[in-house]
Amino acid sequence: MTTEQTIKDMMQDMGKAAKAAAETLANAPTEQKNRALIFAAQNIRGHKDEIIAANVKDMDIATARGLANAMLDRLALDEERIEAIATSLEAIAELPDPVGDVMKQWDQPNGLNISRVRVPLGVIGIIYESRPNVTADAGALCLKSGNATILRGGSESALSNRAIHDCLIAGLKEAGLSLDCIQLIPTQDRSAVGELLGLVGYVDIIVPRGGKSLIERVQNDSRVPVMAHLDGICHVYVDRQADLEKAVAITLNAKMRRTGICGAAETLLIDQAVVHSHLPAIMDALKIVGCELRGDDVVCELDPAVTPATEADWNREYLESILSIKTVNGVDEAIEHIAAHGSRHTDSIITENTETAEKFLALVDSAIVMHNTSTQFADGGEFGMGAEIGISTGKMHARGPVGLEQLTSYKYQVRSDGQTRP
Amino acid sequence: MTTEQTIKDMMQDMGKAAKAAAETLANAPTEQKNRALIFAAQNIRGHKDEIIAANVKDMDIATARGLANAMLDRLALDEERIEAIATSLEAIAELPDPVGDVMKQWDQPNGLNISRVRVPLGVIGIIYESRPNVTADAGALCLKSGNATILRGGSESALSNRAIHDCLIAGLKEAGLSLDCIQLIPTQDRSAVGELLGLVGYVDIIVPRGGKSLIERVQNDSRVPVMAHLDGICHVYVDRQADLEKAVAITLNAKMRRTGICGAAETLLIDQAVVHSHLPAIMDALKIVGCELRGDDVVCELDPAVTPATEADWNREYLESILSIKTVNGVDEAIEHIAAHGSRHTDSIITENTETAEKFLALVDSAIVMHNTSTQFADGGEFGMGAEIGISTGKMHARGPVGLEQLTSYKYQVRSDGQTRP
Repeated sequence: MTTEQTIKDMMQDMGKAAKAAAETLANAPTEQKNRALIFAAQNIRGHKDEIIAANVKDMDIATARGLANAMLDRLALDEERIEAIATSLEAIAELPDPVGDVMKQWDQPNGLNISRVRVPLGVIGIIYESRPNVTADAGALCLKSGNATILRGGSESALSNRAIHDCLIAGLKEAGLSLDCIQLIPTQDRSAVGELLGLVGYVDIIVPRGGKSLIERVQNDSRVPVMAHLDGICHVYVDRQADLEKAVAITLNAKMRRTGICGAAETLLIDQAVVHSHLPAIMDALKIVGCELRGDDVVCELDPAVTPATEADWNREYLESILSIKTVNGVDEAIEHIAAHGSRHTDSIITENTETAEKFLALVDSAIVMHNTSTQFADGGEFGMGAEIGISTGKMHARGPVGLEQLTSYKYQVRSDGQTRP
Repeated sequence: MTTEQTIKDMMQDMGKAAKAAAETLANAPTEQKNRALIFAAQNIRGHKDEIIAANVKDMDIATARGLANAMLDRLALDEERIEAIATSLEAIAELPDPVGDVMKQWDQPNGLNISRVRVPLGVIGIIYESRPNVTADAGALCLKSGNATILRGGSESALSNRAIHDCLIAGLKEAGLSLDCIQLIPTQDRSAVGELLGLVGYVDIIVPRGGKSLIERVQNDSRVPVMAHLDGICHVYVDRQADLEKAVAITLNAKMRRTGICGAAETLLIDQAVVHSHLPAIMDALKIVGCELRGDDVVCELDPAVTPATEADWNREYLESILSIKTVNGVDEAIEHIAAHGSRHTDSIITENTETAEKFLALVDSAIVMHNTSTQFADGGEFGMGAEIGISTGKMHARGPVGLEQLTSYKYQVRSDGQTRP
């Protein structure tokens, strides 16, 4: 038997096992799911030495392979990060269970009583990179929402993922749930991903979390529906009626609070009417904290220290301390630029003019549109959804932060007393 | 230039035009969309002679090609059916506009005011067969929900579709909306479908309406997300505690009211405890109206007039006057059978035992689950949603009847007074 055949068979078996587990999990009591999560958190704390030992091995291999520092930082686990993983599991246990929630109930003139009730999606495949905490977060969010998961982590974090997964499995066992509720693909062979993307009938949805190339590959190859999480090319537009102080504070925060998250701003659009009055203060605030600036002709002329931007800069998610700056003629041009170059993630307008703001909020076609607010708030936790599995930039199913509710579907329960249709 | 290249270019142009139209349509006032629909209804009535003339030509070609009678019946238009098309357009105009609806609004402790607001999906591709009224219904539902449409009708109804489409276009024109809001693919070349399924970036979602082979082809080939409308293998389960009268009336109605719709029952599951007390009366009622019965050994033994069912019968959507009948040992076996053979569309339990009913409603994983109710009620109109574009059997995005709301997505509008994230 070839390796490909072995992996194909293994993935089919994992798919079947996940589907069977999902059928039982769909009706598992909230209390049982919570117990599994709380036990898992205890196991994480109790086995922190093993997790750190596994992580040290991952780090050694990654360092030898010459992984970039930013990647190494995402991979590294210490006591604090492990405690954060355990706390996050407990926080998910405390979130309300979406399953069984009656979203709507009504009576029809035809005698039918109709309820729309939340149910799990079924089996969720999660494909992710580097950060080992995703193993716990994604597994836990799926479990709480009644979905079985098949996890596929990055090769660089394989040992850390396995150590964390062991703790989740022990939690499932202690709570009396099927161990197939959260499965981790045990090989780093790339063909396993291809097989996962073809498990139609077993896997209901694929959620890729990672860089653009990973997500594009998944979207192109998957025969299972994909919850799209594309890149975050987020914009701040400073309007001619922007308050200077807010413009400075929000641009600085949107770009520099954390540059590596998808809600970080990548491009500043500045109304040409306030280039002279507002832009210098904004650029000063950014330069002081070490942000590289790339601008169009007008911006470069204003400040020769700014690097000229190329066309490619308007389409780039830097995820580092670089900001591109473009002058536009009012809100309409800002909206046009965002339509042409944005990634439909999060975009914010800074203005004191409510009418202009409402126009921006209505016409910018992004998952999250903001007024006088930092794009760094694009986060399920900040939205009050508890934890999130990511931000969806697609319009199908879920848009914006994907929390527990977004990991569910619904069914209609119809009750009557013998009604037939005329 | 080859024909393939020409069609490829044509479909790209249609995709681009649809996307541009969708951007404007997304913010078109309700009144303007309604005007287009009401004008279209008037045009349908005013041009009924032209529509009937086109339909007569379609019917002649179809008859010459030897199309089955059931198909010819679906294709045929008369004054009454044309009036129904016009009335349906007016009814859609009267439905509430889902676009702009604030689904939820809340304040976060971080100072953010968050609204979740309905927006259109964008561009919807509809691929359908025979019935020419779909041209009007689908185009109108998409228009009312703010989506641009690309329609691809069956070749057998090409001239009828074009005549109806002309009336929709005239309505768009009279209301001052872009004529690209509702486009009909002008060729029957099959490669046009393949191109439509590949219009990623222009088309947001594909809705196939038709037979199983069409839908499977679309699901396999599409690179655009598909709203799945699989077949309706619907079950009625008569429990040991079923009321006899309800069991007879509902089974008869579920099977025979209209046999050609997806909510028609295809299999009767009967609890072995009531085979002798309930089944004869149910079968008599069905036989009187000419329903063919196919049963398992127990059923055949009870009534030698019943044809023995083969394994294939449990997986078939007859869409005609045939019912398969299987005896099961209680609700658990009924649930198992439905899980193995159903299509997750609509299934109903007949019982006076509420606990048994609730078990069935919870554990049967179908879009619509019913208690003491005929499966023929599986319809957006009967659910109070107004018109529907079909019944989704997938779990992503929309499940069950797909009406105006299900043709929308949402965005988050976030307002604050200069909030930055700590």
